[in-house]
Amino acid sequence: MVWCSGWRLASAVSNAGGLGLIGSGSMHPDVLREHIQKCKQATANPFGVNVPLLYPEIDRLMEVIVDEKVKIVFTSAGNPKTWTAFLKNRGITVAHVVSSASFAQKSEEAGVDAIVAEGFEAGGHNGREETTTLCLVPLVCDAVKIPVIAAGGIASGRAVLAAEALGASGVQVGTRFAASAESSAHDNYKNRVANSTEGETRLTLKQLTPVRLIKNNFYQKIVEAEKSGASAEELKKLLGKGRAKHGIFEGNLEEGELEIGQGAVFVKKIKPASEILHELWSDYLLAKKKLSN
Amino acid sequence: MVWCSGWRLASAVSNAGGLGLIGSGSMHPDVLREHIQKCKQATANPFGVNVPLLYPEIDRLMEVIVDEKVKIVFTSAGNPKTWTAFLKNRGITVAHVVSSASFAQKSEEAGVDAIVAEGFEAGGHNGREETTTLCLVPLVCDAVKIPVIAAGGIASGRAVLAAEALGASGVQVGTRFAASAESSAHDNYKNRVANSTEGETRLTLKQLTPVRLIKNNFYQKIVEAEKSGASAEELKKLLGKGRAKHGIFEGNLEEGELEIGQGAVFVKKIKPASEILHELWSDYLLAKKKLSN
Repeated sequence: MVWCSGWRLASAVSNAGGLGLIGSGSMHPDVLREHIQKCKQATANPFGVNVPLLYPEIDRLMEVIVDEKVKIVFTSAGNPKTWTAFLKNRGITVAHVVSSASFAQKSEEAGVDAIVAEGFEAGGHNGREETTTLCLVPLVCDAVKIPVIAAGGIASGRAVLAAEALGASGVQVGTRFAASAESSAHDNYKNRVANSTEGETRLTLKQLTPVRLIKNNFYQKIVEAEKSGASAEELKKLLGKGRAKHGIFEGNLEEGELEIGQGAVFVKKIKPASEILHELWSDYLLAKKKLSN
Repeated sequence: MVWCSGWRLASAVSNAGGLGLIGSGSMHPDVLREHIQKCKQATANPFGVNVPLLYPEIDRLMEVIVDEKVKIVFTSAGNPKTWTAFLKNRGITVAHVVSSASFAQKSEEAGVDAIVAEGFEAGGHNGREETTTLCLVPLVCDAVKIPVIAAGGIASGRAVLAAEALGASGVQVGTRFAASAESSAHDNYKNRVANSTEGETRLTLKQLTPVRLIKNNFYQKIVEAEKSGASAEELKKLLGKGRAKHGIFEGNLEEGELEIGQGAVFVKKIKPASEILHELWSDYLLAKKKLSN
């Protein structure tokens, strides 16, 4: 949710009854502090911060989080052993994002409170196992005793119910909110997501960190580079710096990195976060009613 | 289910309360006739035949199917317009396998009775869209009025319930039965499936027909060929003829094509088909009870 989930989206989700998360992956520490402070002003409900553990200024991000008395932290993209004890000792609830049952076990051993099991269909950075949410969630539920939150492809109320059927205690929804009214993303990006068709997202850059994005000119360049046998180093050069910002925040649809999940096909219109939450909830209730008949 | 699903497996599934399917993709027409006749002797319950529409001797396969009064045909890998009317005019129920909502609509227009919506996690030949079962099933259910059968990753009773939550009227289970006692596959293959770990299957040969298989020496050769910029023609040559037979039926674990789905991780032991069905059913009922509490 880089370049999408600032205080506006997080507080809108929390005000509507969800748990809003500020995505710190695209923020400098002082920017994160500002977003946390604004989020506290905008909602009286709980919210959290997502922290990619490979973030270069991670120490300073963590300082801000503790300083601002954030109560819930979702960590991802890194070793849960490094920061879990630090956060837990300060009374913070920790969930860690994984793409395999073996990492779920390692996270449980590291002391996290909950696991986010994120499948292949998820947008943005993704695991190397390519295990889909349908296979991953029951696997992770069997592997750990702590609550499991399903992520990846959770873009309809039916998918929320399916996640519950698989054993999940909750769901994490990214894609639907990336194109919400309160998302910080550029309108070009939001409209591109709303107009995307099935099969248009792809997991790519597998030699670096696999990432799911909408196919565009930049994606074609990756495909061609890979076809001609490009090394990881050459791909890194092609990716360059700031591609995600360029695509998501600045709205360059052809040269930017348009991170989004397969759930993009369920986005038909840019709507306020509260409306999305209510839609997911009523679709969930309808599906649950059908299932019990 | 090539080299796995002959009359033994199909009749065992039908006798246990499922709808067994004979996979004709690996059979000459006279072999198919023999399997149908033996299946009729082995079960009084309904069973069907799966026919890949790109099969070279398709006319003769269809002749055998009509001649032997098969009542249910699942078609895949081809245009549903070509054979649906022929089969329907002879009183045969037709289901067609798709990997996208747009092909589901085309299949409904072609007059099929049901759609099999098969996601990215499925074993063997697979679609180009890479849409996972969790995303595909609700999309397909929204696109057609006829019943939808979910396939791909349906390897636990919880996944059956999840498929139902997504709107499916039924499920197609491949991987769990590929390693069953009655599967015609080689014991080496079955044991390899039972011992597989998460992330070990991969969708590959995307330049030809994408296929999901267990990573082995043959798979590594594909990866290397692709890295060095191999053309479709060169990959076809590398694949050669009879790779699936070599791996699945003859049990060559390193040079054969070990087709299987992500559900392989749910296979712990080689069991009779009836036991697998009962396990799926009791896991389903348990999950349903949990969901309604």
